[in-house]
Amino acid sequence: MKIDIFLTRTAIIVPPLALPSREIGACVEFQGIVRELEGEASLTALYYEAYEPMARSVLTGHFTELSTQHPCDAVVFIHRLGEVPVGEPSLFIRVLAAHRGEALRFLVESIERLKRDVPIWKVVPEMAP
Amino acid sequence: MKIDIFLTRTAIIVPPLALPSREIGACVEFQGIVRELEGEASLTALYYEAYEPMARSVLTGHFTELSTQHPCDAVVFIHRLGEVPVGEPSLFIRVLAAHRGEALRFLVESIERLKRDVPIWKVVPEMAP
Repeated sequence: MKIDIFLTRTAIIVPPLALPSREIGACVEFQGIVRELEGEASLTALYYEAYEPMARSVLTGHFTELSTQHPCDAVVFIHRLGEVPVGEPSLFIRVLAAHRGEALRFLVESIERLKRDVPIWKVVPEMAP
Repeated sequence: MKIDIFLTRTAIIVPPLALPSREIGACVEFQGIVRELEGEASLTALYYEAYEPMARSVLTGHFTELSTQHPCDAVVFIHRLGEVPVGEPSLFIRVLAAHRGEALRFLVESIERLKRDVPIWKVVPEMAP
């Protein structure tokens, strides 16, 4: 499958949809957006940090493995680093496949693995008392 | 929840993302795209027809019911009717919610219900022998 991974310190721009073949029947996209309320804190932004080489390597491994379980044709993964204001996306994932079932399962498992074992993490700024 | 339903006879244009509040944490989108191979036939396009007033009414009922099970804030549903060429989307659904779990479940069940009991159907043109 085609794997594109971008880590960016500027606002995420959703890339134009490019279909790699005439057999793509499903495009599934996810955007994770920074919310104002994180637990009991009221935020204006979150901060994301990453160990970038390892993040790219682990993500590539995940996507390669998941594509054997849920055959998909392409994944585009974009994570913003640094400050991300409330209301803006920190994460964008697009999955293309022949069928929606595989695309949806690939997406769901990609997000779960991202939270679990990819070295990209959020830093909640300390709130003034 | 905010429900927007569009049935259109022209190409689907993905609407700009508008967040109804600062508590939206997940945006999930699905596009169903016409594939070249439908069973054993090689297509250049599919044709969709609808009983429009009933389709709108049934969809509104589905979304209202699903939002009680999987709380979401907004859904945008666009279905193209008439001829849809291979490689172009016939369906677009966007779901906004605080959390990805609800948005994903709402999306998956919306698509299943659409296929099952909304009067929008595809017509595969007869192939020349």
